[in-house]
Amino acid sequence: MKKDLPSEVEERLRQIENAPYAIALKMETVSVGNGEAVVRMPIKGMTNALGNGHGGAVYSVADQAFALAANSDGDPQVALTVSISYLKPARGDLVAKARKVGESRTTGVYEVLVHDSEQLVAIFQGIGYRLRKRENR
Amino acid sequence: MKKDLPSEVEERLRQIENAPYAIALKMETVSVGNGEAVVRMPIKGMTNALGNGHGGAVYSVADQAFALAANSDGDPQVALTVSISYLKPARGDLVAKARKVGESRTTGVYEVLVHDSEQLVAIFQGIGYRLRKRENR
Amino acid sequence: MKKDLPSEVEERLRQIENAPYAIALKMETVSVGNGEAVVRMPIKGMTNALGNGHGGAVYSVADQAFALAANSDGDPQVALTVSISYLKPARGDLVAKARKVGESRTTGVYEVLVHDSEQLVAIFQGIGYRLRKRENR
Amino acid sequence: MKKDLPSEVEERLRQIENAPYAIALKMETVSVGNGEAVVRMPIKGMTNALGNGHGGAVYSVADQAFALAANSDGDPQVALTVSISYLKPARGDLVAKARKVGESRTTGVYEVLVHDSEQLVAIFQGIGYRLRKRENR
Repeated sequence: MKKDLPSEVEERLRQIENAPYAIALKMETVSVGNGEAVVRMPIKGMTNALGNGHGGAVYSVADQAFALAANSDGDPQVALTVSISYLKPARGDLVAKARKVGESRTTGVYEVLVHDSEQLVAIFQGIGYRLRKRENR
Repeated sequence: MKKDLPSEVEERLRQIENAPYAIALKMETVSVGNGEAVVRMPIKGMTNALGNGHGGAVYSVADQAFALAANSDGDPQVALTVSISYLKPARGDLVAKARKVGESRTTGVYEVLVHDSEQLVAIFQGIGYRLRKRENR
Repeated sequence: MKKDLPSEVEERLRQIENAPYAIALKMETVSVGNGEAVVRMPIKGMTNALGNGHGGAVYSVADQAFALAANSDGDPQVALTVSISYLKPARGDLVAKARKVGESRTTGVYEVLVHDSEQLVAIFQGIGYRLRKRENR
Repeated sequence: MKKDLPSEVEERLRQIENAPYAIALKMETVSVGNGEAVVRMPIKGMTNALGNGHGGAVYSVADQAFALAANSDGDPQVALTVSISYLKPARGDLVAKARKVGESRTTGVYEVLVHDSEQLVAIFQGIGYRLRKRENR
């Protein structure tokens, strides 16, 4: 985690990292800050009928990177809608890299690339909805 | 599971149901057959920082229902691309209901509705790519 | 158009129907009201390199039906994000049928089916963002 | 257009550029080649009820750039599924820039950014399906 984040942002990121689901799936935050995040996840035990990473597992690590990136600067965001395209079977531990690609007054758009040990296996595009202060109350 | 499915289809569905990831997330197939499927999943231990169902968990149960529905008739299919929209925080055990809404020569389109114990929480639209016999070899 | 719509809603729908782009593409509203809308569009002059309906034309008639449906009840909505899947080449005049499939406090989710003279050619899923009164000012 | 493209590819791109719909909407190819394309389109006469670029118009210019990019190298591709997110109202002539971001054996994934005269107004992600030689017959 970047060392110069406001304590409010740091606290929020800590909660996302320690979410029960993220822990159950053994996700590990490699880095986070300034609208970007990198998350790693082992594939062991998370396979589908063909022995490759399950579509839900590939999505989950990308979603976690998206959540961290989208909450690493400015107002908190919740996921509104996501599209994911699967390019190759996932055959090893996964790394998801999220970055902000655009934003509006109410939304942020993030691209997440998921690689296995060899290549790009999925592309994820997430739209986050900004929770502004008055809506947080 | 429908009782009149061809043994080849039944075998394929059994493998999807018994995928390590589906078992790890305690997914349970309620019904499957004729392009439709219903899958249930407990939310316990699969929550996000706010105590609601993690986006990856909500997606995963929908993806499993999609995989079962898409493999319950005709040629096997693999997920090509999916879009999911989150409507409400998921606050109890999840039920995902998948049904085929359209198809082309090479693809099938499935809609999956995810409900928690009270209401519709997410809408998932998955595009499956048909693996025809000659490509299976 | 339904005859019992509030005059504010009717005025808004009239403006959407009379948008320069809708007129340029010869779109015709068949019906609208209660979260649903049907729009027709001729394919003549709107073809792609293969002589079928251009992807942009197929999308456009669906988007118009989505806009009408999303503005036919309650608060006005603007398109936030859309996914569309193309199933078959479009080979005749197009009809787009939109209906609401879900909603949250801030969004509405609409499915639009596009048929040509023979069959279903595309499935469109649109997420609208509600403009509440205080944001309209 | 790049000068060193194979004549087969050049011919295909020429047909896409000269599609009746592209001409009707006054689209102009700025550049194309190697999995990339830039297309320009005037906004005049293509507005919505609010006087901004209609969602269908913004999509259409992006779709045209996607079609050109996806057909500028290797096998021809047709659009399978697309997701688009609208960030800002489009308030001037549009420029769509497409580039390939990933691919599998059967698909190509393209990102298209649409700018108006001032800023990024929409992000488009298109999945193309490769038509291999034997399927072309």
